[in-house]
Amino acid sequence: MRPGARSLEVAQDRLTEKTTFRRLGIGTPAFAAVDDRAGLTIAVEEVGGLPAVLKTRRGGYDGKGQRVLHHQSDLDDAWAELGSAPLILEALVPFDRELSVLAVRGLDGTVACWPLVENHHEGGILRLSRAPAPALDPVLQQRGEQLVSRVLTDLDHVGVLAVELFDVGGELLANELAPRVHNSGHWTIEGAETSQFENHLRAILGLPVGSTAPRGSSAMLNCIGLMPDRDPVLAVPGAHLHDYGKAPRPGRKLGHVTVTAADDDELTARLVALTGRLSPAV
Amino acid sequence: MRPGARSLEVAQDRLTEKTTFRRLGIGTPAFAAVDDRAGLTIAVEEVGGLPAVLKTRRGGYDGKGQRVLHHQSDLDDAWAELGSAPLILEALVPFDRELSVLAVRGLDGTVACWPLVENHHEGGILRLSRAPAPALDPVLQQRGEQLVSRVLTDLDHVGVLAVELFDVGGELLANELAPRVHNSGHWTIEGAETSQFENHLRAILGLPVGSTAPRGSSAMLNCIGLMPDRDPVLAVPGAHLHDYGKAPRPGRKLGHVTVTAADDDELTARLVALTGRLSPAV
Repeated sequence: MRPGARSLEVAQDRLTEKTTFRRLGIGTPAFAAVDDRAGLTIAVEEVGGLPAVLKTRRGGYDGKGQRVLHHQSDLDDAWAELGSAPLILEALVPFDRELSVLAVRGLDGTVACWPLVENHHEGGILRLSRAPAPALDPVLQQRGEQLVSRVLTDLDHVGVLAVELFDVGGELLANELAPRVHNSGHWTIEGAETSQFENHLRAILGLPVGSTAPRGSSAMLNCIGLMPDRDPVLAVPGAHLHDYGKAPRPGRKLGHVTVTAADDDELTARLVALTGRLSPAV
Repeated sequence: MRPGARSLEVAQDRLTEKTTFRRLGIGTPAFAAVDDRAGLTIAVEEVGGLPAVLKTRRGGYDGKGQRVLHHQSDLDDAWAELGSAPLILEALVPFDRELSVLAVRGLDGTVACWPLVENHHEGGILRLSRAPAPALDPVLQQRGEQLVSRVLTDLDHVGVLAVELFDVGGELLANELAPRVHNSGHWTIEGAETSQFENHLRAILGLPVGSTAPRGSSAMLNCIGLMPDRDPVLAVPGAHLHDYGKAPRPGRKLGHVTVTAADDDELTARLVALTGRLSPAV
C-alpha cells in the first residue's frame, strides 16, 4: 500500500478512526456505531447517556454533518436529518481545552513532533491556535508525542499528520485525525524552526526532516468570511498576514494572521492588541 | 518623482552613486571620473595611485565590467577593454571585511534596519553572508543605520535598499547601492522577524513595516552554477534549501541555503558541518 493511503482511509471514516485509536490504546470519548433508528437509542445507552453528538461517519468538517443531542426528544429530529448515511454517536466530553498534536514522519520512519497546540473554535470553525499550548506540562507533551507516534507508525504514514485532542484533567482523548498539513499548524511558518509545509515536502521526498522546535510563542488567527483591514493588523508587533486570495463567503477561511512573540506573556499582550482589529467571523 | 525612481537613477551610475554618498557625508573609497585615456592617467593620481579599480559607470554586476590596475603598464590594456564606455576609477581599499546594511523605508518615511551582514565573495560573486555580522559592535551598527537612513531619506526611497560597505578599522566606507531586496538579505526569510521580501511589500503597499530584529544568528550560502545534493545539506540542523528552479550555468545563482542557529558559535559549528556538502561554485 502506498504511504499515506492507509491513514487517508482511516481518517475518512469516523468509526474506523475511533476504532483505530482504541486498538492502539489511545483514549477517545465513548462512541458507538449507529445503523438504524433503534440502534440510535441503544447507542445513547452505550456512550453513557445524553448529551452526545451524532455524526455522519464520512464527509463532515467544520461542524457540518453533526447534531448535538441534549434530550431523548432530539433523537427523532436528528435521525430524520442525518439517518440516510452511516452514523456514529459520540459522548460529549466535558474537556478543559482542545489541543492538537502535529507530527511528521519521514520515509525512513523518523518521527518529529511540534509542541502541542491549544485550539479555540467559533461556531464549529477553528478561530485561534496558540503554540506551544499555554502552561504546557512536559508530561502532556510527552503523552501527545507518544500518541501521535503510535498512529503514524501503525498507519505507516509519511508526511505531516495531526490529531485533534481533548485535554481532560491532563489526560488526552483523541477526537479526530487529519493525515495532512493542518490548520492548527499554520503558525509553524513563522513560529517553528521548520514549518509543517517544508517538513511535509521533506518527508514525502525522502529528505531529512527539519527541527520542529518552536521559536518563541506563536498564535494563529483564522480570517473567516472576511479579510481584515491590513494596516491595523500589521501595526501589531510580530503580526504576519496571510491572504489566500479567495472569494469571501460566510464561514470560509480566507486567510490567517500569525503573531510571534518571545514568550507566552508577550504573545498574550499582542493578541490583546489585535482585539478588534480582526474582522469578526462571518 | 515616483518613489524609487531617484534611487534607481543614482544606483545605475557608479559616479552619481559615489557623488551622492559624498554629498551626504558618507565615506567612500577615493574615486575619479574617467572620460578619456589622458583622464585615466590623471585619475590614477587623484585616487592616490595604484592599485585601483577601473569600472564602467553603468551596467556592471558580479565583478563584470571592471579591471584591477596594478601597474602603470595595465592602463593601456584596461583602456582598450573598457574605454568605449564612461568610466570611474576607484582606489582599492585595504578593508578588514565586507559588510552590507539593509533597511526598509515605508511610504510614511519610517526606516527600519536589519543587523549589519558580513559578506564573503568568490570570484566576484557573493558566496556567504552572516547576520548579524560576527562580533558586531553596536557602534558599527549605529553607523550603518545612520548611513543607510541618510541615503533612504535623501533619495525618498520606498521599499528595501542595501548599501555594500567596507569595514576599515571600524570606519564604514560605502561601495555600492542596491535600491531593492538584496542577495545579502536572503537570510531574513528564516533569520529575521520580518523578511526583506515581506517588508518590501509592506512598504510599497503603504502598510506598517515589520520588525527587522534578528532571530538568533543566520548564514546564507549561495549555490552557484550547480545545486548541491539535497539530502546531506538538509541533514544539517537549521539548514533550509531554496531552489530557484533555474537552468544550471557557470556563475549563475541557482539557489541558496540558509542556516539558522541560536548564536554565532552554534552557527559556526553548523557551517563547518556544511563544508563539503555544498557544491563548489562553478
